[in-house]
Amino acid sequence: MSNRMWGGRFAAGPDAIMEEINASIGYDKRFFRQDIAGSIAHANMLAATGIISKDDKNSITAALADLQKDIEQNKFNFSRALEDIHMNIESALAQKIGDPAARLHTARSRNDQVATDFRLYVRDVVDLLVGQISSLQIALVKRADEEAETIMPGFTHLQTAQPVTLGHHLLAYVEMLSRDYHRFLDARKRINISPLGAAALAGTSFPIDREMTAKELGFEKPAANSLDAVSDRDFVIETLSAASICAMHLSRFAEELVIWSTPQFGFVRLSDRFSTGSSIMPQKRNPDAAELIRAKIGRIFGAQVAMTIVMKGLPLTYSKDMQEDKEGAFDAFDTLSLSLAAMTGMVDDISFNRPEMEKAAGAGFSTATDLADWLVRTLNMPFRDAHHVTGEIVALAEKNQCTLEQLSIEQMQSVENNITPAVFEVLGVKNSVNSRTSYGGTAPKNVREQVKIWQKILKG
Amino acid sequence: MSNRMWGGRFAAGPDAIMEEINASIGYDKRFFRQDIAGSIAHANMLAATGIISKDDKNSITAALADLQKDIEQNKFNFSRALEDIHMNIESALAQKIGDPAARLHTARSRNDQVATDFRLYVRDVVDLLVGQISSLQIALVKRADEEAETIMPGFTHLQTAQPVTLGHHLLAYVEMLSRDYHRFLDARKRINISPLGAAALAGTSFPIDREMTAKELGFEKPAANSLDAVSDRDFVIETLSAASICAMHLSRFAEELVIWSTPQFGFVRLSDRFSTGSSIMPQKRNPDAAELIRAKIGRIFGAQVAMTIVMKGLPLTYSKDMQEDKEGAFDAFDTLSLSLAAMTGMVDDISFNRPEMEKAAGAGFSTATDLADWLVRTLNMPFRDAHHVTGEIVALAEKNQCTLEQLSIEQMQSVENNITPAVFEVLGVKNSVNSRTSYGGTAPKNVREQVKIWQKILKG
Amino acid sequence: MSNRMWGGRFAAGPDAIMEEINASIGYDKRFFRQDIAGSIAHANMLAATGIISKDDKNSITAALADLQKDIEQNKFNFSRALEDIHMNIESALAQKIGDPAARLHTARSRNDQVATDFRLYVRDVVDLLVGQISSLQIALVKRADEEAETIMPGFTHLQTAQPVTLGHHLLAYVEMLSRDYHRFLDARKRINISPLGAAALAGTSFPIDREMTAKELGFEKPAANSLDAVSDRDFVIETLSAASICAMHLSRFAEELVIWSTPQFGFVRLSDRFSTGSSIMPQKRNPDAAELIRAKIGRIFGAQVAMTIVMKGLPLTYSKDMQEDKEGAFDAFDTLSLSLAAMTGMVDDISFNRPEMEKAAGAGFSTATDLADWLVRTLNMPFRDAHHVTGEIVALAEKNQCTLEQLSIEQMQSVENNITPAVFEVLGVKNSVNSRTSYGGTAPKNVREQVKIWQKILKG
Amino acid sequence: MSNRMWGGRFAAGPDAIMEEINASIGYDKRFFRQDIAGSIAHANMLAATGIISKDDKNSITAALADLQKDIEQNKFNFSRALEDIHMNIESALAQKIGDPAARLHTARSRNDQVATDFRLYVRDVVDLLVGQISSLQIALVKRADEEAETIMPGFTHLQTAQPVTLGHHLLAYVEMLSRDYHRFLDARKRINISPLGAAALAGTSFPIDREMTAKELGFEKPAANSLDAVSDRDFVIETLSAASICAMHLSRFAEELVIWSTPQFGFVRLSDRFSTGSSIMPQKRNPDAAELIRAKIGRIFGAQVAMTIVMKGLPLTYSKDMQEDKEGAFDAFDTLSLSLAAMTGMVDDISFNRPEMEKAAGAGFSTATDLADWLVRTLNMPFRDAHHVTGEIVALAEKNQCTLEQLSIEQMQSVENNITPAVFEVLGVKNSVNSRTSYGGTAPKNVREQVKIWQKILKG
Repeated sequence: MSNRMWGGRFAAGPDAIMEEINASIGYDKRFFRQDIAGSIAHANMLAATGIISKDDKNSITAALADLQKDIEQNKFNFSRALEDIHMNIESALAQKIGDPAARLHTARSRNDQVATDFRLYVRDVVDLLVGQISSLQIALVKRADEEAETIMPGFTHLQTAQPVTLGHHLLAYVEMLSRDYHRFLDARKRINISPLGAAALAGTSFPIDREMTAKELGFEKPAANSLDAVSDRDFVIETLSAASICAMHLSRFAEELVIWSTPQFGFVRLSDRFSTGSSIMPQKRNPDAAELIRAKIGRIFGAQVAMTIVMKGLPLTYSKDMQEDKEGAFDAFDTLSLSLAAMTGMVDDISFNRPEMEKAAGAGFSTATDLADWLVRTLNMPFRDAHHVTGEIVALAEKNQCTLEQLSIEQMQSVENNITPAVFEVLGVKNSVNSRTSYGGTAPKNVREQVKIWQKILKG
Repeated sequence: MSNRMWGGRFAAGPDAIMEEINASIGYDKRFFRQDIAGSIAHANMLAATGIISKDDKNSITAALADLQKDIEQNKFNFSRALEDIHMNIESALAQKIGDPAARLHTARSRNDQVATDFRLYVRDVVDLLVGQISSLQIALVKRADEEAETIMPGFTHLQTAQPVTLGHHLLAYVEMLSRDYHRFLDARKRINISPLGAAALAGTSFPIDREMTAKELGFEKPAANSLDAVSDRDFVIETLSAASICAMHLSRFAEELVIWSTPQFGFVRLSDRFSTGSSIMPQKRNPDAAELIRAKIGRIFGAQVAMTIVMKGLPLTYSKDMQEDKEGAFDAFDTLSLSLAAMTGMVDDISFNRPEMEKAAGAGFSTATDLADWLVRTLNMPFRDAHHVTGEIVALAEKNQCTLEQLSIEQMQSVENNITPAVFEVLGVKNSVNSRTSYGGTAPKNVREQVKIWQKILKG
Repeated sequence: MSNRMWGGRFAAGPDAIMEEINASIGYDKRFFRQDIAGSIAHANMLAATGIISKDDKNSITAALADLQKDIEQNKFNFSRALEDIHMNIESALAQKIGDPAARLHTARSRNDQVATDFRLYVRDVVDLLVGQISSLQIALVKRADEEAETIMPGFTHLQTAQPVTLGHHLLAYVEMLSRDYHRFLDARKRINISPLGAAALAGTSFPIDREMTAKELGFEKPAANSLDAVSDRDFVIETLSAASICAMHLSRFAEELVIWSTPQFGFVRLSDRFSTGSSIMPQKRNPDAAELIRAKIGRIFGAQVAMTIVMKGLPLTYSKDMQEDKEGAFDAFDTLSLSLAAMTGMVDDISFNRPEMEKAAGAGFSTATDLADWLVRTLNMPFRDAHHVTGEIVALAEKNQCTLEQLSIEQMQSVENNITPAVFEVLGVKNSVNSRTSYGGTAPKNVREQVKIWQKILKG
Repeated sequence: MSNRMWGGRFAAGPDAIMEEINASIGYDKRFFRQDIAGSIAHANMLAATGIISKDDKNSITAALADLQKDIEQNKFNFSRALEDIHMNIESALAQKIGDPAARLHTARSRNDQVATDFRLYVRDVVDLLVGQISSLQIALVKRADEEAETIMPGFTHLQTAQPVTLGHHLLAYVEMLSRDYHRFLDARKRINISPLGAAALAGTSFPIDREMTAKELGFEKPAANSLDAVSDRDFVIETLSAASICAMHLSRFAEELVIWSTPQFGFVRLSDRFSTGSSIMPQKRNPDAAELIRAKIGRIFGAQVAMTIVMKGLPLTYSKDMQEDKEGAFDAFDTLSLSLAAMTGMVDDISFNRPEMEKAAGAGFSTATDLADWLVRTLNMPFRDAHHVTGEIVALAEKNQCTLEQLSIEQMQSVENNITPAVFEVLGVKNSVNSRTSYGGTAPKNVREQVKIWQKILKG
């Protein structure tokens, strides 16, 4: 065996390997606040139901509060031999107060304890993330208000299709983020259920009060089935799924920022803060933050894939496989939080190049649809016929190398005799966007109404 | 070019390739009902707002109703050259009624039309799936009621940990399915928003009434931003995510059925219907359906991965990439529906081997925790000390090759002098499960209460 | 039960469900050629080793050849009740020739038969795909040759960094495709192993000659372990992985084509064949094929995810889960084949806008690096100092709103006194690309050398 | 802004956010050896080609060697403001030796430098992993040799199908690992290409010698296209794919170990080292290491998903998105290395329960196939007829509650008159496995031959 190649990291042999693969304290120490809160709630309940004495309870809760301070002040020595956060804290508690510590573990188990800690943690994550989503929405709404009348090309297939307003475009992301917000809150309902008291897997014969611990920890209610309570990691996967979709939205906006900040588009200028330059090309401005945000969906969704694979085909109840629930989730949530913060900073700082946007909006006969709609509306042409006439007029403009507006009324009438000068009202990009006042349409008036609605919602 | 190898399927050259990659009619014809319903609602609204005449509207809606019948009766010739369901129906409509057909497309576009169709379709899928989830819950609750007192081993790490009741185990899946049910309904809220009237991307200058079409189609309300309305495919990804988590639950139960039906476990016997035999080994019973259900999470989650990749970094608004939203989703939803049906059938038909389960539950000193709890409760020992004493007593039983129940009181007192004969009450598996009456615990009494609660919920 | 909701598709109840979930003939009939080839090889071997008579063999192989013709001419009735391709063909054979058919299944099993069929199929797929990869390389090399001197911006962060040649850019994809080519061939080595003769899982006591069947079917050798032979689906996953990476390459080029065909970039014009227009905006050209290719990586990689999930944690040997290996793989391989064909067509047809590309290449002081390199090379400045001087000169040009070339020698000397007029030789984009002659560099001379090398390789 | 909620971690505002999202030194410091080796090779080449002086080269290489020692001895202060490993080392070099340091960056860029470092790193990873794979193969072959005659049930669908030898089962994993080994080596060919000298993206006008640096760093050759050289991350994805497939194999064996160590199966006993016990149930032995290995495929494959998503649709050349290539890959490779080490340790330590395995192998008429084969071979029955006769005999045994061996010859002849006592030779599990001597079959003789072949291969 001695000459066996374990790989250099494992020179110490099997015991070191097992410790490395088995111990979770390296990452689950993040749970110290949740673990201590859970233990205090459990102790209070054990005392209230007479399972432990009031003195023991007081001794336990006071010592736990002290331990929390120790950890916060970096005075706590985490031991890898004690494997996880639960054993580290339990052991420290025993050293501090002896016997009563040994009573704390009555009617609970590491299985329900870790599930409780993780749910409390993910609930905090959700509360942080929905706050950050709101912050990004606030930043977008503010810019949408400023850019309610700014005209830009509306793209399909990344080709100019119709003129729209920049404010309307920014509000599209506010809508997406609103779905993210509510998706997280819907997940929160399923997170916020207390596993505490499920014990190892079967419940307990002690007369515990699970409503009480649930209430003290802010849970909506206790889980109704002990086997499910210790086996369930849906709440991790569902929250990761909400995070992935949110990251997807950010990736779309990030892609737009990367494209818009090319010299070819020139629609935006990112601030120095969120871009990097070149020591020899001072005009160069690499959209690093946008690119990184675009990429981050990879690891966030990767964490969801990982956890789905872990849970596939896992028999009830707790299996050690489930210990894989934490590291990927931590990284994914941290990453989304960072991405939201960076995107909010970029939105605050970005400069929009209005003239360039408006110029691009007018190119490519982008008001051809307006012309067709005018023909339908005014001359009562069937839609498909109006399309045909419009195509001929656009071809005429193309031949004359001019815009639709620059054609004379006679030129237009050469295609369709009934066209009147009133048609010019719809051919400019400004008129075009102003006319699209249907609910949800791009008109500046609509943008301002939506901005007001959002300001009211986001003030809350 | 003629000697270029396109691969045999593409002998016909570039035009055939483009048609193959571009046309969607092969799969989006599934939408014919939704497409026609959307068109009828749109026509009604166009007439109500005076955009088209009542006569035109009547002509359009009557013809669309006829077309629907034609399709249902396989009398409709779908054309691949017309690319998709929208153009196929529009073209057939034009052939039937001429001019009025050409007016139907006023103030809408394929971009909002396809989004409308797909949302209507996914909403129907969700309604089907939640019904099937309820059916599976009903089947499980029925069996849980029958097996409320059946004792089986509760596993952690697939090792016997504590005795539990089979009814309790089955109800754990009812809980999981309940989360699935509500997850689908939460997704439904975000599905059920009407994109109709967003037009190509910018809204329209026609005085349309989006509330009216939304209402006629059963949508909660119209989408508030036209750019978002045609760019959003969250509803596909979120529904796929709910489907993946549900499939994960099924994979866990399927894995248990595979393991439980081995000769080594012998806990269950699957019916002939859901297993396959061997022509030469008549006793062999392969759990094919369970294995397939276990596997199906692969393609369901694979569809979610695919759609997430498609949407990553896609600029607004509609891009042709989005056409990839359908095939994977159709397959995933069909697959989950089939899996739910198969699992429901298996649960109905399965035979549980109660004696084998109870025998297994009693092996391995599975009531050691009960002994420890008794020591804590009765002798007021600290939990960790009680664990130590229990370990010694188990070791004694192991040495004597007997169960805990079979030890004499003297033998137990040799380890801990204060133990009284009352201890025997907790050492049998039956007493063990009966004692776990904490909320969510495994006691038959609890199982029956939960069964009643579920029966009431599922009757609705 | 009768009022149980199975979901409408399953009105017929459990038996219909089981048939639907269990039968594979709907998709594995694709294997008919492979299945028949495998059976012929097996029959030949059984006769050669004396296990069956020569007459039986002749009868079997002749009848199988007839069946193949029947299937090719759509005269074969596939039966879903017979589940799969193997039983369909075996049953038809029995009807044709009776007893000898019953001898064909000696010393084999469906487990090794399906593995054999699938390996033969995937080997054919690989051979098709590497041919298509070569075709795309040929198309790219041809265009690279034509565009060896075309100057375009080299991008980092989608910002103009340095001028490069379009030919060089196109050859970058030839390199990527070359890795794909070899990755598929490496996978082929592991595909091309014969499972035939592994029987159900344990081998057989018949004196079979596995070398002989392997050779007849073109396999490199028989698999060395029967348990592995029937349990292994690595070859599917590995081929899917090669396909995913190839699809990723195509998605990158597709993204470039989408961006390059915007009016803002205007670098390329896609042919009518591979884009779609608008009935009213004749100049609009949506890059549909490019967008679809960009998206296709979703489903291809999704299939890899699905199969990885299926195989995770599956005990030996054959489990029914493995039946999920086919549909996703078929779809993924078809999709990559179609994507390669479409991309080849687009590359053939595309028009490059050379003036626009060269103009863009010269913008943004893109030869600043050349200036810095000149300072290092000619004046022996340390690199970081040269960067500093260059930055000052660029700032000067920016202030004067001119290019680097347009600065006077005196202006440059005002920053660094030792600069000589020889510096102008490196400031134009043409000189810049011509100077980058290091191996792998962008100089037209290098491009032509690489084109020659590739022409030689691809002629083979 | 001051009252904006960034989330607590970002109280310091936008600059802190940008530093956090942008800096890579936290993880790319792993590359210090590779970065220094690359710089030394580059300096040597610059001197050899006369681009820098020999004195400068000597000064640079000596100082770099010192820096490496500093880092190895933890005397180096990494600065986050300097972003990455390249700038950290370059800056330290400048402080040490001034001007010559500034010359080192001639004719290279961070773009080719990071690609070089990462390829060197992944090459080292591959070399480590293939060594560990061999170690696990050695461990398996040793146990296979010991268990060449141990009889166990061969499973399909986790149901007993035919008896096999444990040695043969263990060798199935040796085969899988052999594919992993060669898959990694095939990937290594594509890893081992030098990007150094591609410079930022276009190559350089300095007369560099890329063959020389490639050779000094052990690369097979320089990359032929500079744009591809800085844009390519195939080598990461391909290596992750090889790692995922290997992890999948480990997950399958891990699943078997979990199932085999249940009391119901009782086939194996894991050592104390690789399992955890219970303080109160001393007989309990949780297979923690096996469960964790089973789960680890999640994060390894998750990293592949993440990187595939990152690269999807990324235009050439370097984009900051690519910075996401490292963390996931590091974690995945570390994880696979740890899993291989743990599995090797488990295989070394595991105890096989031979009597239990053999007993299980004999249950369920597992030699029915042998009987059918005997009928074919000896009585020349067609295979399907033999199946029918066998089924009747098995039914007879089942009725008599005896094994096939325990039936009398008369009983058998009552089903098929031509059966002779010679049939008994094939009815015992020992005879069954001994008879399966076809190439790749399970006979102990075959196992020993394969063991010898593997011992020779693995000695190398």
